[in-house]
Order: sequence, then structure tokens, then C-alpha cells
Amino acid sequence: MFESAENGNKIGRKEYEHALDDLRVELLNAQFDLQQAPFSVLVLLMGVDRWGVDDVVSVLHEWMDARHIDTHFFGRVTEQERERPRFWRYWQALPSDGEIGLHIGAWALGALADRLDGEIDDARLEQRIGQVRRFERALSDRGTLVIKFWCHLSKKEYEKRLKKARKNPELEPYLEKSDWKRCEALDDLLPFAERFIGRTSTSDAPWHVIESTDFRYRNLTIAQTLLASIRARLEAPEPPPSAKAPAVPRARKGVLDTVDLTSALDKEAYKSELQTQQARLHQLVRKAWKKNVSTVLVFEGWDAAGKGGAIRRLTRALSARDYRVIPVAAPTDEENAYHYLWRFWRQLPRDGQMAIFDRSWYGRVLVERVEGFARDDEWQRAYQEIVDFESQLAEHGAVVHKFWLHISQDDQLARFQAREKTPYKKYKITDDDYRNRDKWDDYVDAVEEMVTRTSTDSCPWTVVPASDKKFARVEVLKTVCKALERRLG
Amino acid sequence: MFESAENGNKIGRKEYEHALDDLRVELLNAQFDLQQAPFSVLVLLMGVDRWGVDDVVSVLHEWMDARHIDTHFFGRVTEQERERPRFWRYWQALPSDGEIGLHIGAWALGALADRLDGEIDDARLEQRIGQVRRFERALSDRGTLVIKFWCHLSKKEYEKRLKKARKNPELEPYLEKSDWKRCEALDDLLPFAERFIGRTSTSDAPWHVIESTDFRYRNLTIAQTLLASIRARLEAPEPPPSAKAPAVPRARKGVLDTVDLTSALDKEAYKSELQTQQARLHQLVRKAWKKNVSTVLVFEGWDAAGKGGAIRRLTRALSARDYRVIPVAAPTDEENAYHYLWRFWRQLPRDGQMAIFDRSWYGRVLVERVEGFARDDEWQRAYQEIVDFESQLAEHGAVVHKFWLHISQDDQLARFQAREKTPYKKYKITDDDYRNRDKWDDYVDAVEEMVTRTSTDSCPWTVVPASDKKFARVEVLKTVCKALERRLG
Repeated sequence: MFESAENGNKIGRKEYEHALDDLRVELLNAQFDLQQAPFSVLVLLMGVDRWGVDDVVSVLHEWMDARHIDTHFFGRVTEQERERPRFWRYWQALPSDGEIGLHIGAWALGALADRLDGEIDDARLEQRIGQVRRFERALSDRGTLVIKFWCHLSKKEYEKRLKKARKNPELEPYLEKSDWKRCEALDDLLPFAERFIGRTSTSDAPWHVIESTDFRYRNLTIAQTLLASIRARLEAPEPPPSAKAPAVPRARKGVLDTVDLTSALDKEAYKSELQTQQARLHQLVRKAWKKNVSTVLVFEGWDAAGKGGAIRRLTRALSARDYRVIPVAAPTDEENAYHYLWRFWRQLPRDGQMAIFDRSWYGRVLVERVEGFARDDEWQRAYQEIVDFESQLAEHGAVVHKFWLHISQDDQLARFQAREKTPYKKYKITDDDYRNRDKWDDYVDAVEEMVTRTSTDSCPWTVVPASDKKFARVEVLKTVCKALERRLG
Repeated sequence: MFESAENGNKIGRKEYEHALDDLRVELLNAQFDLQQAPFSVLVLLMGVDRWGVDDVVSVLHEWMDARHIDTHFFGRVTEQERERPRFWRYWQALPSDGEIGLHIGAWALGALADRLDGEIDDARLEQRIGQVRRFERALSDRGTLVIKFWCHLSKKEYEKRLKKARKNPELEPYLEKSDWKRCEALDDLLPFAERFIGRTSTSDAPWHVIESTDFRYRNLTIAQTLLASIRARLEAPEPPPSAKAPAVPRARKGVLDTVDLTSALDKEAYKSELQTQQARLHQLVRKAWKKNVSTVLVFEGWDAAGKGGAIRRLTRALSARDYRVIPVAAPTDEENAYHYLWRFWRQLPRDGQMAIFDRSWYGRVLVERVEGFARDDEWQRAYQEIVDFESQLAEHGAVVHKFWLHISQDDQLARFQAREKTPYKKYKITDDDYRNRDKWDDYVDAVEEMVTRTSTDSCPWTVVPASDKKFARVEVLKTVCKALERRLG
């Protein structure tokens, strides 16, 4: 693969400057059009030629409007980053629609460096490659234009350059010991890089291996490739509307039908169980904190099923230092300018902490599906995206557990009516709530499919009978305790 | 001070529940009105009674709309936080307009814990108190309602409670060894706390010391105080328009008049100086990185003065891993829902890194002042706010340097006209640019006042003659090198 970037490509000074005159105008125009477009551009930049990469960053800032380029260098992993799943820092740094993100090293460098240092073996590298592909796929599915550049030098060329720099007073100050080490390691690195690039070069997110010996050739080729890619995407025809999801016949008996809504606890049993389970939870959470194990809990359920009450019975057992409740509402405009999972990545707890989501990313396959806020292709691919997302949490070592609080339609009506009579609960009831009841069956379909497709061994769903609030609250507490015990051993 | 919170205040169950019925409705209504208001509420919560604080957090979440309460527990300082000025983490966590921030411990706990551990002496505590007051003042000046609660228990009461808990199977699981230590330390802590609370209880940001022995009294009193404070602010009359800034006669000869605009470098000297200074800078930046010294550079100047070019001559000497250029445009709607310094706090570099601001927080006293985007009282108090802000950077150990690139009105006109002839520079020229020229004298006044009032020994301004771009670029490089050398010794 790299041989094709060792051909001695060069561009003369005159040709370069001449080409630049037009190119810079076109880059600025493309960037201007991009600002109105509903997608972002993510450029991954790395390669053998460290100085070349710096130079590309520099010229792109000069040739384009730097106010709309967001550059991130990903160096050593910080404490804050280490305490979250590996891709957390890349999600944090994503450009919003209309912007260009220039990411140096990023997820490619991480995987290669780990393999080179022997931190991971070939099998683990394959696994990392799979993660990279899923990450890039999730972005490109939403419309992000992902372009990756490898600035290439052969080992011979690299050595030649370092030796030349040593004798050149203009370049010598920029030489570092690590440059020689990097050069030495090239024989080991390049086979891994070749595999990595080959396996992650997809039509969604292609790699461009660029010969970096001549700076004019390198800079011009990268800028032209970037320009052509943005232009092609801007001018691409609208994709056809996605195929409608097939109306699969519902199972006679689904998960929800098996729920025993008569489950109940009397007041005495409730009081004593609540106390026992809260004390148990308290100890487990302290233990999780000491062992740096984070916990992610998701609460979904019918309106008025008692999510808030169940969450409060949990948090009563905890200290404010240990947890954070994240109420999830409709996304803001800012959030809508990113992949829909972006806002949830931002909220992930650090090691040892608990995040409790009051509604969650499952809105995509519940309300957004049923109400038509998401296109069919969007919510259909969301199952896979969500499973990927949660598996990264689990792989990082987090406890992940999801609850669906289930009640009957009659239960719900009774609770709505009761709320309307309680002054401080009235605000919770709107006309929407009644309207949503008309779509009960559609929601049942959505819940069934959601639980079936996203319940995994490491990130399971528990459907909780919630007609009796006391029973539901204790059940949630017990389940969280069990999940923590399983993880903490 | 604390004696007044050791009076045995109690509220009976019936009275409590009765009061709650109305209180919860009123809290929800106040919160609803707050959402439309142009200010936020920041509640600082701490005190002897750790469990009481947790309980208050819990009931406020229950009684109000939890979706609009943003709770932050500030525990040990993380690596990421340690690498920024002390108040960075509090700025990150500020609520936006319409929201309530519930901050536990926060800046009060930090100062008290440091004093108790002997990390700082009385003089340093005084200094910290000064910082707290300036921080709270900056927030309240912008309209933020700051309310602080101390949940108090006497040592005797605290001991009694711990002993009781030890014998109570319901409470025993929640006891921690640290509770006994905390109790032991109370005799030492309370005098510091008294001083701290006394010295930071201002009309802008009052403390409320709440007797915490009886949970009903505590919860009700805090919720009622919060409600009354929000209501009072919502119903406060509009403040009268601020006094116009007096038209102070301009000095015959200001800073700008002393700039020698004939300063120039010929091509040869430029080439050689550029190379020398860039190499020098490169080494210094590596050294700063090794010593964990961060650098904050600010570039302001007339339109077309050459800020971008000067910045690029800097970054050419650096590696992408070392710096970040932050182009500053008009604030977004999201940014406008916070104190104007909020967006700059977010961009501060971590230790060892350089942040280069292409325009900056000085927009407040330049364009916002001249164009009337900021009220007179806003830009007038900005000088002090900026000096406070930068002094926190310097105190943290950062190198801070600010550049005003100066050209004449004729220089500017010539450059505008030249830009219009260069295809890729055309986009930089708008009608606004020509309009701004009409206000040249107003800008001169603003620049003069800015440089005079915000140039400090640790965060100085350099006014750079920029009629000759080559001279200006080298001058900037030299100045940055000198500033780094001074800091690195």
C-alpha cells in the first residue's frame, strides 16, 4: 500500500503558487457552502511525517477560514479520559454541523501505538479496528463526511530527512530525540499501519495515503482531496427516502404480556424491604466507588409509571458525591447539530460514579419512532448504534442496567386523574399525555422491539411491574443491587 | 454566628406536610417563571450536617422540576482541574439563564478544607476569601441570584446523632469512619467557617446558616428561603439605566501616539530574524511543556492589522500538540445565557499548553463598548473583571501576554483595497469594515483605556507597530520569547 506513496511526486514552486490562487478561493467557497449544510466534516490527519502533519494543519488554517476549523491534537490519555470509555474523547471533540474538525492522530494513532508498544496483540487490534469502523460508520450514517490522510515517508526518506536536518541550522532546533526513535520503529510500525489503514478504509471513511516527501505535492494534494470531497458531498443528490420498516406481525405474547401486574407489596413489607435494600445499595455503591467501577442506569417507562419515585428511592440511599441524575428532554438546537448519541456521551460518569438517566437515548426508538421525529432508517439503525454504545460502556468496566416501568392503560388513566387533583402534580399533566395514550399499541410494538434487540448479557433490560409503586421501587433497588454484586464479585 | 442555629428549632409532621402542599406549588411556579427570566440561580449548599445536605438535595429534586436543576458535587480536584486556575471548575458548572444550579461544597469547601489541613495559612485564607467575593460579585453583577446555605449542627448535637446512628440498624449502614473524624475536627473547623461565612456573606451573595437538627425545620426553611429569594428577584423593579460613562478628555498623547509606525525590517533581516526567533520559540515552548507552564496569548488590533499573519508565524514554530488557536467571533445564543467570561474560561489551556486567542474577552471593552452592544455599566465593570480573570491565570502559573497590532488609518485603507483585489482575501472585507472606520476615534479611546487599565506586570500589553508586517511578526515572536524566558527563568 505504501509503495504507491514512494514515487517521488513533486510539484514546482510556480505550479504550486499558481494552483493555490484558485484553490484558496474554492476552499473558502466550499467552506462557506458547508456552513449552510446539515453535516460536518471530520478530517483525521496522521502519518510518518510528523512535521508534514504540522505543516498541513498550518496551511489549512491559512487557506481556509480558521474560525470554522476546530483542531484537536490527541496526545496521551488524560486522567479524565482514562476514566471513560476509549472513544469518549473523540465524541467530545466532534465538529457540529457546518464545521470542519481537524483531528490529529486520534483513534488511529491510539490503536497503532498500543499495538506497537505490545499493549495489545493482533486479536485485540482487530477488535479495535472493529470499534473504529463502527464509530466512523455511526458518524457517516448521520451524514458526517469523514476523510483520513496518512502523510507518508519511506524509512529511507525519513532517515535522509533527519540527517539533513541535523546539519541544517534552520531545521536543527526542531529535531527531537524521539524523531530518531520514531524512525527506528518504522519497520515495526508500517506493517501494523498497513493493516489498520487497509481494514479501516471504507467507502464511508476512506484513507488517502499521501506522499509527503515534497511539501508542495503533499499540501496541494491534501487540500485538493479535501475540496473535492466536500464539493462532492455538497452536490450529492438527496438520498431516496428510506424503505418503510416492514410491519412485522406482533408476537401473540410479547415481553410486556408476561409481566405480572398484580405484583404488590404491603406497607409493612415495603417499609422493611426499602430499608434493607437501601442499606445494601449504600454499601455496594461505596464499594463500587473504591473499586473505580462506574454505573449507568436507564429509566424508561410509560408516562406516570413512577420513574421519578423509583429514582428518588435509589438516590435516598446515596450521597450527593456518588451520583448524578440526568433528566432527558427533547434535544436542543445545539444538540441536534450532532449525532444523537453525542449528548449522552457527554454525560457519562467517571470511574466510581453513578449516572441515572431519567429517559435516555432510547427515545430514538420510542417517542422518535412512534411520533415520526426520526426517519425510519434513523431509528432502525439506532438499535445497533445503541448496542455498540453500551457495549463500550460495559467493556470499560461499567455496570449498565436498564429499566422499563410497566403499567396498564387503566393504571395510567387513574394516575393522570389523580395527578390532576394534586396541586403540585398538575403541571406534570398536559394534553400531550392524553394524546400519547391513543398510540398505546404503537408504543407497545416499539417497547417490545427495543427490549428484544437491545437486551444483552452485559447491558440487560428489566421490565418492572409498576402497578404497585411500592413493589416497583423495591424491585428496582434489588435489581440494581444484584447488578452491582455481579460486577463487584 | 452559629449559636443562632443551635436553638432547638423544630417543626411537627402535620405542620410540615401542610406547609408543603402550598410550598411545592409555589416552588414549581417560581421555577416556571424563572425559566423565562434573564438570570440563573446558583445555590451553594454545605455545612456540618453531611446527611442533611444530601437530604436537601433530594427533597429539592422532589419538590421542584428536576429537569431544570443542575446539581454538582465538588469533591477532590481532578487532574484536569488541577491543570487550570482554581475557579475553572466552578465556571464550567455554572447554570445558564433560567436554570438552577445546586452546588455542593464548591468554592467554600475547598478554602475551608485547605485551611483546616494547614495547606494555607490565615493570610492565604484571606486571599481566597477575596477571590470568592470577586467571583460571586462578577456573577451577581450579571444578574445571577447567588444563595448560600450552611446546614448547621453543634458538635454536641453531631456526636449525639452519630452515637444514635450506631445503635440504629436503619442508619448504621450509612455511618463512615470519616464521620467520626469530621466530628472530631469540628472544634478546629468552626472558627474558620465562621470567619469564612462572615467575610463572604454579602448583600449580593448572602449566607443562610440553617439549624439542621430537625430535618423538617431544615428542609422547609431552606426551600422557603430559596422560594422567597427567587420571587423577590423576579419581582424586583428594573434597575435604572446606568449612568453614562463620563466623557473624560483624552490625553494629548496616548499610548498609541507613541508608537513608531515607521518601524520596519527589510526582507533579508526579516528572513533571518524570523528563523532565529522561531527556533528560539520552539525550544522555549518545549521547555514550558516540560515544566507544565501554560501560555495564554491574546491578539487584538485594527481590522487588517495582520493578526492572522502574526499568529501563523508563531504557530509555524510549534507542533500541533502544543497549541490551540481560538478564533473569537460574536457570542452564540448559548454563550449569551452565561456571564460573558464563561466562554473564555472554557477555552483555557491545560498546563504545558498554549492557547492563542484571535480576538478575545477584550471585545467587551472594544467593539461592544463602541458599538453599544454592552451597556455602559457592563463594559465599565469589565476592566476589573478582566484583571481578576487574568490574575487568576497568572497566579496559576501561566504566561499571559496581550498584543495590540497598531496601524494607521491610511495603512488600513490601503490594505482593504489590496484585499479586494486578491480573490481569496475578498471574503474578509465587508461593508461593516468600512463603517467601522468611521468610528476610528471612538476605538482609539477604547484602546487607550483598555491598555491603561488592564496592563499589569504579570499580564502586560504590548502595542506592536504593524505598518510593516515583517517588523510586526518578528516583534511578536521576540516578545513571546521574552515573556516565556522571564517565566521559565
